[in-house]
Order: sequence, then structure tokens, then C-alpha cells
Amino acid sequence: MQFHLNGVRTGDPDLFEQDPKATAVADTHALPDTVDVLIVGCGPAGLTLAAQLAAFPDITTRIVDQKPGPLQLGQADGVACRTMEMFHAFGFCERVMREAYWVNETSFWKPDSERPEKIARSGRVQDVEDGLSEFPHVILNQARVHDFYLDVMRKAPNRLEPDYSRRLVDLEVGAAAEDDFPVTVRLERTDAGHEGEVEIVRARYVVGCDGARSSVRKSLGRELRGDSANQAWGVMDVLAVTDFPDIRLKTLVQSAGEGSILVIPREGGYLVRIYVELDKLSENERVASRNITVDHLIAATQRILRPYSFDVKEVAWWSVYEIGQRLCDRFDDVAEPEAETRTPRVFIAGDACHTHSPKAGQGMNVSMQDAFNLGWKLAHVLQGRSGPELLHSYSAERQAIAAELIDFDREWARMLSAPLKSDANPDGVDPAEVQTYFVRHGRYTAGTAARYRPSELTGGSEHQHLAKGLEIGMRFHSAPAIRLADAKPVHLGHTIKADGRWRIFAFADADEPAAENSAINRICTFLGQSPHSPVRKYTAAGADVDAVIDVRAVFQQGHRDLDLEAMPGLLLPAKGCYGLYDYEKMFCPDLTGGKDIFDMRRIDRKRGCMVVVRPDQYIAHVLPLDAHDALAAFFDGFMLERG
Amino acid sequence: MQFHLNGVRTGDPDLFEQDPKATAVADTHALPDTVDVLIVGCGPAGLTLAAQLAAFPDITTRIVDQKPGPLQLGQADGVACRTMEMFHAFGFCERVMREAYWVNETSFWKPDSERPEKIARSGRVQDVEDGLSEFPHVILNQARVHDFYLDVMRKAPNRLEPDYSRRLVDLEVGAAAEDDFPVTVRLERTDAGHEGEVEIVRARYVVGCDGARSSVRKSLGRELRGDSANQAWGVMDVLAVTDFPDIRLKTLVQSAGEGSILVIPREGGYLVRIYVELDKLSENERVASRNITVDHLIAATQRILRPYSFDVKEVAWWSVYEIGQRLCDRFDDVAEPEAETRTPRVFIAGDACHTHSPKAGQGMNVSMQDAFNLGWKLAHVLQGRSGPELLHSYSAERQAIAAELIDFDREWARMLSAPLKSDANPDGVDPAEVQTYFVRHGRYTAGTAARYRPSELTGGSEHQHLAKGLEIGMRFHSAPAIRLADAKPVHLGHTIKADGRWRIFAFADADEPAAENSAINRICTFLGQSPHSPVRKYTAAGADVDAVIDVRAVFQQGHRDLDLEAMPGLLLPAKGCYGLYDYEKMFCPDLTGGKDIFDMRRIDRKRGCMVVVRPDQYIAHVLPLDAHDALAAFFDGFMLERG
Repeated sequence: MQFHLNGVRTGDPDLFEQDPKATAVADTHALPDTVDVLIVGCGPAGLTLAAQLAAFPDITTRIVDQKPGPLQLGQADGVACRTMEMFHAFGFCERVMREAYWVNETSFWKPDSERPEKIARSGRVQDVEDGLSEFPHVILNQARVHDFYLDVMRKAPNRLEPDYSRRLVDLEVGAAAEDDFPVTVRLERTDAGHEGEVEIVRARYVVGCDGARSSVRKSLGRELRGDSANQAWGVMDVLAVTDFPDIRLKTLVQSAGEGSILVIPREGGYLVRIYVELDKLSENERVASRNITVDHLIAATQRILRPYSFDVKEVAWWSVYEIGQRLCDRFDDVAEPEAETRTPRVFIAGDACHTHSPKAGQGMNVSMQDAFNLGWKLAHVLQGRSGPELLHSYSAERQAIAAELIDFDREWARMLSAPLKSDANPDGVDPAEVQTYFVRHGRYTAGTAARYRPSELTGGSEHQHLAKGLEIGMRFHSAPAIRLADAKPVHLGHTIKADGRWRIFAFADADEPAAENSAINRICTFLGQSPHSPVRKYTAAGADVDAVIDVRAVFQQGHRDLDLEAMPGLLLPAKGCYGLYDYEKMFCPDLTGGKDIFDMRRIDRKRGCMVVVRPDQYIAHVLPLDAHDALAAFFDGFMLERG
Repeated sequence: MQFHLNGVRTGDPDLFEQDPKATAVADTHALPDTVDVLIVGCGPAGLTLAAQLAAFPDITTRIVDQKPGPLQLGQADGVACRTMEMFHAFGFCERVMREAYWVNETSFWKPDSERPEKIARSGRVQDVEDGLSEFPHVILNQARVHDFYLDVMRKAPNRLEPDYSRRLVDLEVGAAAEDDFPVTVRLERTDAGHEGEVEIVRARYVVGCDGARSSVRKSLGRELRGDSANQAWGVMDVLAVTDFPDIRLKTLVQSAGEGSILVIPREGGYLVRIYVELDKLSENERVASRNITVDHLIAATQRILRPYSFDVKEVAWWSVYEIGQRLCDRFDDVAEPEAETRTPRVFIAGDACHTHSPKAGQGMNVSMQDAFNLGWKLAHVLQGRSGPELLHSYSAERQAIAAELIDFDREWARMLSAPLKSDANPDGVDPAEVQTYFVRHGRYTAGTAARYRPSELTGGSEHQHLAKGLEIGMRFHSAPAIRLADAKPVHLGHTIKADGRWRIFAFADADEPAAENSAINRICTFLGQSPHSPVRKYTAAGADVDAVIDVRAVFQQGHRDLDLEAMPGLLLPAKGCYGLYDYEKMFCPDLTGGKDIFDMRRIDRKRGCMVVVRPDQYIAHVLPLDAHDALAAFFDGFMLERG
């Protein structure tokens, strides 16, 4: 963590100084007439976006929800490795790791081959392959994830708090004049003493994070399309006494005749979530019509787990739902033919644009990544760093990711609901096939397989060979390094905070970096001094040199073999009101293990390279160290010069 | 973390349910007439003790301080590895690791051999040897350590908050009848509107954590004895611009003619602490008489750092002080001749009983260990688990530790203050010798070398050979393991929480543990069923089986090679109001690395062993697995059977 730059402030370093322009949100309990961004819905997507925007004191954000207060229990709980990486950027991954259940292994049970009325363990696999991420795959009550985001918002310069008990009545997008608030939103209060009061808020942008039945989506005339949902499932969080030995492992149990359950152990060491396969539904039948109770779920679990006992002592939460895979064809308010003439003003994210089964643990994760993708883009446009055309990329990038998710989930849900293969059922699913599918898609479910296609934000692959392990369009895969100035072992990727900044990681070639003509010295000179440098062009006068683009270098020499004082000035920048040096821009390989960061990420040691990383941790480009013009051209593609 | 045992509770799992008997401390602002323990002083020792006692709802604790509120800045900042291990037990080591500066390497500078008016780097060493602790050595403002303890107290069942603005007037120890409050304390309020009001509190026990000028110590008629303090030093926390390259490393600079400084980089990446050698004082002279200002400290630093510049932009805190090494001969109110007839009622801890120079970074650490040693003993006696004779062990154990500290510090301070060896000064200190001394004492300064002598609490060494790396009398040195039930990689030592419980770690021999006659099965049967079992004798009826002594086992087999359901019942205990199983008692070696826990801690694989660990993480005994009687006898030595 870095703090004290502009003078020593005591107390919690996560608590930012309150911005004097920011109204004390928690005190007002009334929505302002105009806001830059109105977020509808306090789920994972809405809170990710709110936490991101709360970091910018020059952007006015409000987030509303129709519920009367924060979520307490239930719903999603899977937190993929990729999400933990994002949580690190928001500063609370340590808290999640401490509280959560860690999914270390997954176990598979099927009918015993001798006595198929009993189940037997058929396999046990490592849940996340080694080296996929520095973070574990964990399970934590969604409400706690909300708590952590609310804490970030509360401590942010804007001191943002949700406005609860607001129901969206309608939303209208008017013609947008410059500097105007073209989206008009009507909200009805539902809190005691204010019932029925209607507030009108005019916003520059509105984001619907309001779930599968999204009012925002409906107001755009968009709908979720996809498979009809004819398979009912139940889910319950319970405290239970059982002799089933794998109750503390993520476990798929497929019984011979009673269906399947998925066991997800939960945080705290005692609680467990069970997903239970229920009946096939008729076409157009809704599960609600079945009058299923939690006792049905418990009885089904008991039958499936035979010969093991399962004695439920407390039900903390339960629900029934139908599985379907449904997707919206665009995630904003711009219809295909308008895309050339109009930029989006209203967006939808999370369950509002894609719904699917919960059993791959993807929903909350993909929803938060939607919002993380959108957050910095909204900030760039509102801060004048980019033109509003940038906002087209949100739907383009995230709709493609959601389509992949829908395809994956359709197959996974089919496998989990299909009858088992047997002599009587030759077309059924083989449990071994299920296990193989699970392992093969491990990177996908970890959230690390998402890849954005080439665009103005995602460069071409001409130079990908310089860093084969840092793939363009995919998330920056962190690796350990040693910080030069203080010899601290760190993860290079952990320098990326959720602060809306771009990063350029310059991986040096093998030359002495201090030499005047070294490639590192030349790229630093270009970035620091050339009028074509994106660092110079896009950073406001008076701002810290790394305020928009944060340049860091990784050398090949050991950290005791380099002279800090001889390094390029751009890598030891003077910052803040006192001109204090920032000592955290230079890194060396950790030579104590076998493989160092250059080996792990397969970086060309002879040539080095530059890796350009977006504010949402995705790799935008890989370029040679001497590709000064190409680097400038990349940023010129979507950024606006400061006036 | 384990929670939800007695039903699911939403929200922060660190926030305990408030004990109905506990008064809402923060609301009263008036001290009760009687308390079990009154702690005087909200420094590191006092807060460690308060946080420890706050965990026990059946013990009434209050902590007072003469300051009007919590510390904001300055004072101690070094946090040794051993202290981080204790912070883990209190649940906040992750927060410290995230915020703190990490001391990774220490650098040494001396006069350049060619041009002695300039300094040059003479050495650079790793600060903590590999494998000494799983935690780093870090630097963090003492005020933040206070904040974390205050947070633990606030969330504890007792909801304990300090009572500030209370000055100790006097303290008197009366004759102690059973169940009485023999210590009478008079406190004067100093807060606005209450100035001069005197409160009288009667306490069973009083602990003076009120610093070097301790009023509690004085009221006992005890004094600090030791060397006169004739060397003045200054200390300052500053934001500065410098071209000195090692400003972000812990650095000792010894100049040819201008004295020495010690550079301690601070949290946040910019702040730095400098200790500056000032003048020798005359006998009985106090540094206050010199009228030293921070400008003197800055000027001296600038002279010592030549040829490097050092431009101070902001001074966050500074002070001057004299070095002395002083010690109290007993840490309680019982004089030597009374020890057989009377048990202690008043204790002193931390600077109240030992003072020394701050530059080895020991003060705060040793003080907190004092309190951690005392906390569980007070709880045991107050809860009727042990007789009051147990309390003699506090002074006996901690005074010996403090005496070692004083000896160490005397030598270290001498080295840092002595003139450098030169032709003119053949008796001076050689900088190489200083570096060697620093490295040799690394384990000591890390806090991991402390060793309690044999006593009723610390067994003899007859069976030490069964676990050569877990030394009796020293802190339990954690090592990685895999939890059997959920395959989670954990640190075995992290099972030890600051909850006043004892631990028995049973390291299995190589036999199949499920075999009826295995040593593990036999010790578990003894502990679970024998009337001589300390687990049975000392655990109240109706309490969880691990409420007093927490038994855990480490097997030699890989975690996929054991059947959870076949293990001894004591290791899968049913707990809480629902009888839920606790799945966190059994561990296996991590076989993926080279060395496993049996190798790392040199445990006899053929015989296994039991390691008994005190509530303060110190190893009380190492015994063979079949030493059932010796184990029982050990606990019988100081515990009282439950009525």
C-alpha cells in the first residue's frame, strides 16, 4: 500500500480523505436532481461498479435498490480465482481469504459398481491447476462480498452509500446535448413514511444491475432469450450432521435412481450448501407451482447420499429455481443500426443480461467482471480522457463473454441433469465423462480463460511471441518479483489497483539498464520527454506523471546487482505536493526459486517487451521495447489529449 | 476461521455475539465499583492483555489510561516475526501485513576507505533467516497496532472499550479473602466536566502497563535499576527527498566523525524514521536540558549521510531520549520471602518493568509478550481452572526474558554509540563486527529465541529428541500441513488462537492410524475416555470436548490415503448445541514440497510424539505418544478439577 504522499495522515490508510465537493451521501437520504451515473441494483455487479466509481471524486454516482437494506444471506457464493485477483485491486482479498472456504479439491461420487443402490467415490481432483493464479478458488456468502464493497465505498473520497427502498418506475433516454443529463429516471420510494413518493433523477448514464427481471432492461425493450427452463433444482444452506466423509469437499454425487446433488462446503467450517436435482418440469411450467418445500430438498438429499446419513439441524436459507440459459443480444441501449450515430447512455450488467444455472459458480463472478469492464470506461469518458465511442466496447466485449458462458453452462447443466448411462439407458451420461469435462474446463471456471477479441482496445498478435505467457486480450497473469528499492517479494500484478489507471510493464532485455543507450533507458526517455509520448499527452499539467499511465519496469538482474540511483528518472518519479520519490516502480526477478518471472511468463530475454494493461487488469497489447510509435498509436486510438 | 457452530449468524464473523451479562461498556463512561482485572495503561502491553481478557465473558475487565484518547502517532514501530505469530492468534496479522513496511534486508554503511569523509555501503544482509517464521519482520506505527487491538476488544463478547482520562492516584493491596477484591485503586478523572472527580475501583487483580514512569510500579515500591543514561539519541518520522539509495532499506550508517544514524523505512512507501546519535551526556544530565530541536536532528542526519542530500519536507513526529538499560527485579507485588505464603495481586508489564534503547526494535514486542504470558494465567485463575499459585510464574518467566533483553541491548547500544575503530581510535568498534553481531542475533531480534526454563509449566527435556525442532520452553514453530477433511493447505500453528485454550498436537507414528491398536487410537481413547484424562478432568460437563484442551493430530500419510470416517472419534468431535462435527482436527503432511512437517520439525517418524502447547503458543512439553500418565501428571501439576 502507498499512502502519506501528500503529508502524514494518521489512522486507517484505506479511509480516503473525504472530497470537499462530495456531498455527505449518507446524511442526505434524498437523491440529487442530477448525477453522472445512476446504478440500479445493489448486487455484485452494481456494487463492483459503485466501488469503482466511488474512487473518482469528480464523478457523481448514486446506487439505488428496491430492497430496504443490505443483503444478509443466501444467493451466490462461488468466488473464482480471477475474481480474487480483482478483489485484490479493490483491497479486500485478504479479508475474503481469511473468512472463506477454500475449494482445494473436488470429489466425484457415483453408484457403486457392485451395489448401485449405494454411492461410492469415483474420483478426486485438484480444483485449480497449479500456477493458474496466485489466489485460491473460494466460497463465501455473497452478503459478505457486498459488505466488503460497501466498506470500500464508505471509505472512498465520495463516501458513497446505497439509497435503499427505491423502485424503478421508468426510464427515458432523451436526445443528448453536450454536458447534459439525457436519461430521466423515475423512482418510487418504498420506505416507511415515504411510501409512494416519486423522485426524478436525471443522469448522464444509467446502469441496470437489477437482476434477471431487470426493470432497466425492460425499459430498453430488450429481453433475455434462450432455452426454456424445464429442469427444477433446489438449493439450501444447512447445518447438518452426516457421516458422508466428503462433506467438506466440493462434491458431485450422481446416484443411480434418485438424481444428483452438488455439495459446496461453506465458510466457517460447519455450514454446507447443497444443490439438489428435482423433477423435470413440463413445458411452460414454473417450479413455484410445485409447492416444493425444504423438506423435499432434504429428503432428496438423504436418498441420494445413501448409505450415508444426513441429519439437518438448521436451514439458514433455501430456494428452488428452474435452470435456463438466457442471454440478451446487446448490453446497452444502442440498436445495431444506430451504432455509428449514437453512443450508449444506458447499460445492463450481470443477471440483467445473462442468466444460467448457478452450479458452475460463474454468475456472481461474470457479473462483477461486467461491471469492472464498464467502470473504468465510464470514468474515462466522464473525465474527458476518452470520447463516448469507447462505451460501445462494453457490450461488444461482455456480450461475447456471456455467450461463451451460456454455451458452457448449457453443456454442464445437461450433464448434471441427465440420467446416468446404464444398460437400460445407453444415451445417459457417464460420470467419468463429467469428471473429465470438469477438469478440462478448470481454467474457464476459474475465470482466467476470458479473452477479448482484437479491437481498438486490444492489439494484434504480431508481437505476442515476446511474452507468450501474457496473452493479449486476457487478464494479466501475475508472477512474483522482488522490488528493487526495498527488496520486498511482491506479486507484480498486485501493483494494479482499481484506480482507473493504465499500466505499462516494461520487461527489460538483458543489457545493463543504466546504460545510456539501453532499450529501457530509451523507452523511458521517450515516455518521459517526447511530445508524442502517451504519458505526456494524456496526463494533465500538474498531475503526477503516473496519474493516467503508470510505467513500471522489470529487470533481468538480481536486485542487489543494480544501482537504484543510476536508473531512468521516469522509474523514480517525484510526486505529490512535496515531490517525494515513488520507489515502487522497479522490480527484479526472484532468483531464489527455480523459475523467475521471465521464465514463468515466457518473456523473450534477448529482446524484452512492453506489456500494456488496462485498468481492469486485461492485457491490451504486447510490443517490442523500441516500438515507441506503435505504443503512441495504440493510446491515440481511444484517448483524448488534455486541453 | 470457524463460526456458525451454534447456528448461522450473518455479518462479520469477527463480531462476537454480545454477552448478555456484559455491560455495554462504551455506553457507561463510569467505572464499576468492582472488577476482576483493572489494567492501567493503553499501550501495547495493556491492549494485548485487554484483548486477551475481552474474549472471556465471565471475566470483568476494564482498561484505563490517563491520555484523553487513543494514540495517533509515533513511538514504537518494529513488529518482530514472533509478534506477527501472536497477531495471527488475535486475528489481525493479515491487516498488519497489508499495511506495514516489510524489513527484507538490512544494509550497512561506513566511511569510504579511500575518502572517509564520505559514506559507502559495506554490507547488505537478509534481515530474517529463511524458515525462521512464516511471517515477515515488519514496521508499522504503534498507533495502528493499537487500532487493531481496540477493534478486537470492541468486537469481543465483552465489547470492551478503554476508559480514558483517568490518572492513577494510588493503589493499595489489602488482605485477600476468598472471592474478594483486595486491590483498591483510586483514579482521578481529567476529562472536561469531570476534572478532579475521584473514582474508587476494587479489583481482584491490577496490571500496570503504564510505561517507564509507571505509577503502579511506584505504588508497589519497586524501581527500575540499571545503567545511567548518558547517551542522547533523537528520533524523527519524516517525509524527505533524498538521493541516498538505501532509504527504503533498514540501514545503519556509521560515519567517520559525525556519529551514526539508523534508517527505518515506514509503511506507505514514503515515510521514514531516523534514529540519530546525539551527544554524550554528563553524569546525571538529562537530555531535556540540551534544548535539542528537530532541526538538530535533521542537520546531524545531513552530515552523517554525506555526500547524499537529505531534504526534509514534513516532520510527522520527533523526540529525544537518553539510552539506558534498566530492569525491575520482580514483576509483581510479592517480595521474595513472601512467595511461599502469598500469591500476587498486582503485576507490571512492558516498559513499567524494563526499559532500554529502541533501536533493536524490541520494546513493543517484548511488552506484548509479557501481557500474552500473563493474560491466560489470569483467566485460568479467575475461571477456576488453576490455583492462584500459577500467577507466580509470570514474574519468574518474564523477568528472566527481560534480563536477557537488557544484556543484549546494552551490547547493541554500545556498538551503535561507540566511535569507529581507526588508527587514532584502536579501541573503537569495527563496522564489520557490528554487522556480524546483527546477523548472529537475528533469531533473538525476531523474538523467536525466547525460552522459558523448566518449571511446572515447562517440562523436562527427556523426550525432546522426539521433536528436535519443537523445543520445550520455546514458541511453537509452525509448519505447513494439509487439513484432512477439506485438503486445505494450512499452517499447523495457525490453529492456535488467543482463546486461553491448551493444545496437544499428536504427531502420529508411521502406522495406519485407523488400526485399533495404533498409538494415535490409544492416546485418543485415553484422552476421550479415561477418568485420568486431562481432557475429561478439566473440562466442565456440557462444554465442548475441546473447550479447555484442544487435541489435534498430524498423520504421516498423504491426505488422499486416509479414510476420514475411520479415524478416532476424539478427532471428529461433535460440538455445540446441534452436535455438529468439527472437521478441523486432523492434518496430513504436504507431500508436494521437498520436506514435510515431520522433516522440518525433526519429528521421530518411527515413534511420533505429543507436543503440548500453552495458550500463549509456547511449547510446554514433548512426550511419547504412549506417555498417557506423564501427560496427565503434567496437567495435574497446575490445573484444578472441575467441580
